[in-house]
Amino acid sequence: MAKKNAFYAQSGGVTAVINASACGLIETARKNRDKIGKVYAGRNGIIGALTEELIDTSKESTRAIASLRHTPGGAFGSCRYKLKSIEESRAEYERLIEVFKAHNIGYFFYNGGGDSQDTAHKVSQISDAMGYPITCIGIPKTVDNDLPITDNCPGFGSVAKYVAVSIREAAFDVASMAKTSTKIFVLEVMGRHAGWIAAAGGLAAEKEGDAPHIILFPEIVFNEEKFLNRVKRSVKKYGYCAIVVSEGVKNRDGKFLAEAGGTDAFGHAQLGGVAPYLAELIKERLDYKYHWAVADYLQRAARHIASKSDVEQAYALGKAAIEMALQGKNAVMPAIIRTSNKPYRWKIGEAALADVANVEKMMPRDYISRNGFEITAACREYLLPLIKGEDYPPYKNGLPQYVTLKNIAVPKKLQKGFKVL
Amino acid sequence: MAKKNAFYAQSGGVTAVINASACGLIETARKNRDKIGKVYAGRNGIIGALTEELIDTSKESTRAIASLRHTPGGAFGSCRYKLKSIEESRAEYERLIEVFKAHNIGYFFYNGGGDSQDTAHKVSQISDAMGYPITCIGIPKTVDNDLPITDNCPGFGSVAKYVAVSIREAAFDVASMAKTSTKIFVLEVMGRHAGWIAAAGGLAAEKEGDAPHIILFPEIVFNEEKFLNRVKRSVKKYGYCAIVVSEGVKNRDGKFLAEAGGTDAFGHAQLGGVAPYLAELIKERLDYKYHWAVADYLQRAARHIASKSDVEQAYALGKAAIEMALQGKNAVMPAIIRTSNKPYRWKIGEAALADVANVEKMMPRDYISRNGFEITAACREYLLPLIKGEDYPPYKNGLPQYVTLKNIAVPKKLQKGFKVL
Repeated sequence: MAKKNAFYAQSGGVTAVINASACGLIETARKNRDKIGKVYAGRNGIIGALTEELIDTSKESTRAIASLRHTPGGAFGSCRYKLKSIEESRAEYERLIEVFKAHNIGYFFYNGGGDSQDTAHKVSQISDAMGYPITCIGIPKTVDNDLPITDNCPGFGSVAKYVAVSIREAAFDVASMAKTSTKIFVLEVMGRHAGWIAAAGGLAAEKEGDAPHIILFPEIVFNEEKFLNRVKRSVKKYGYCAIVVSEGVKNRDGKFLAEAGGTDAFGHAQLGGVAPYLAELIKERLDYKYHWAVADYLQRAARHIASKSDVEQAYALGKAAIEMALQGKNAVMPAIIRTSNKPYRWKIGEAALADVANVEKMMPRDYISRNGFEITAACREYLLPLIKGEDYPPYKNGLPQYVTLKNIAVPKKLQKGFKVL
Repeated sequence: MAKKNAFYAQSGGVTAVINASACGLIETARKNRDKIGKVYAGRNGIIGALTEELIDTSKESTRAIASLRHTPGGAFGSCRYKLKSIEESRAEYERLIEVFKAHNIGYFFYNGGGDSQDTAHKVSQISDAMGYPITCIGIPKTVDNDLPITDNCPGFGSVAKYVAVSIREAAFDVASMAKTSTKIFVLEVMGRHAGWIAAAGGLAAEKEGDAPHIILFPEIVFNEEKFLNRVKRSVKKYGYCAIVVSEGVKNRDGKFLAEAGGTDAFGHAQLGGVAPYLAELIKERLDYKYHWAVADYLQRAARHIASKSDVEQAYALGKAAIEMALQGKNAVMPAIIRTSNKPYRWKIGEAALADVANVEKMMPRDYISRNGFEITAACREYLLPLIKGEDYPPYKNGLPQYVTLKNIAVPKKLQKGFKVL
């Protein structure tokens, strides 16, 4: 039988290192040209498979592919698109098979978070349900760090590093200004459901008095009085107060604080911005001058301050995906297994997609201090290795040199189009 | 006559490199122990002089002082406090002399922006007006880049680099997501009066289609229709639109856009956040999904991505301040003189404080494109050298190692206190 081509796609919110996984995968496939054909990337994730918009990665130079290792974002485009079950959405799966057949695709690699692993799992069921042989491997990726089994998720370590570095730096600033000006700094970070990213801010606090003085987690119901007391205490004791807040913090009615705001210029309920909300609350109640920042995409795109562990793991997982496929494995996801904390050691293990799909790993309650405003020693021990090491991209003219691929389309072979959007 | 001690203070908003100037100054003073006594730093700027809260920098180790070169914020504390004229505020100047006399201070070094150079200039007039001999040297610092005579201001180059790197990275992210999700990204940056920082974002756009696609400058009155048309055009042409907006952008009534918003949760006019305002405007009118970020202090504290030119110049200016003082110069500010663009070369020149005080350097109109949304080639030529080179701080456990000085107080010699706040 002729060797089969591979399909690779990026899915969901992108990260500073998802392209490092693409790099590991494509480089490893190229080293195994005798066993695996071309790697076709989906333009904009799985949508590219459905619409037959495939990118021929073999047209990219060795150097361009190597540059993916240090390029943020998703080089082939990503998407937020979840496949329903085979029963509910048979037409989509039939279309996938049609496209795979037309392009001799025998491997399906899907690089994403929880929803994407669920999609990968469903695609893996095509073999049985629809009689099309496909080797299906998920590759973990999510800044939310919420996939089960894997010790951590590629993308998270770099956001964690960005947040810890940023709150440390901003705190040096506000500490300088506090005597006559700004006393409060609030940094809003991602994390709708779990406080992993906010927790990472806590790594900056290495000794008594270090920022952040307060972390607000989505896991802990916001208590205004306790919060304000702690702000006041921090200002009294240290002269200022630096706060990291997760966008997902909720009040006791289960509403996002960010939505407890007023109305915007268009008369809508004010969207987003738990940081400005808290800053104004502090001003209103304690009359301290404030500054606030919302990092948003900057945090997950910040390849310039990526964690070296994170880059290495992202690459290793892409590489492992090809190796597993060539070993005949199917319906699995390579995972990070931590084998030692001090020194930090890890290896690649394996998770069944069935065990990964639709399972969300929450932050253990014992990672948050009893008062609800700090991380514990256990949390620090878990997080610290994930931000270790720097992996700077190359610079030219003062700017990081990121690659934009040529992304040359594979000629379409099917007559019919397919509407997904 | 016994050698005199020096007073050094940091003033106004701090930067990623103001401590590099402190480092240059203290290290150079230490090399000239035969001519200059101790360097006393003002705790929280000039306030430290008024309240006799002096810090004895001679108690800091060589290593700690060297670490200032890579530490953001103001190591001795800064302040927003402007001295009035000698006529208006005689008591303050008399107090300064009293403190200087008590501590044998013959040199006054003031590290700050426009207001601070004005203060330095006024202090330099003590000699004549009040008969106290004092050598007075200003050291430029401001992220706003608005001091005259000096080609650029330390602190600006590093913010510029941060903004250019950040918009480039975020644009890689949004470009990946644009097909099915976010099409708009708005990054709000500092600059109430001048668009220097927003302009720096333009450095990220090296070729057609590169982000940022739109820059909004405080120098250009906001035109909603022209702006929205350009957003639409960018999305049509490139699939997405990345915007850098200065916090100081105003509408035709001269109001900050940030204030044209609605009301906050406390019923106040919504403060800050021109980024969310624009994002909502785009959503309302064009129905594109958006993300926005407000960098705030992160941008001026981001020592981890400081510009090497900026660090070198900040250090050189601190060093030059001591050298000028020892050469008997007075009432001057060392300044950056650009001697060549390609290759970029600069040297230290000299500006009279009288010529610096109260003069604001605006961005030349020909640095902004005719359409008002981009920078010109002339602007790029001016800005590019300022972000050149990287100067990474040392890291430990994944985090930059910034120094916190011991800041040991000089024992007070005066009976009387002085109330400034």
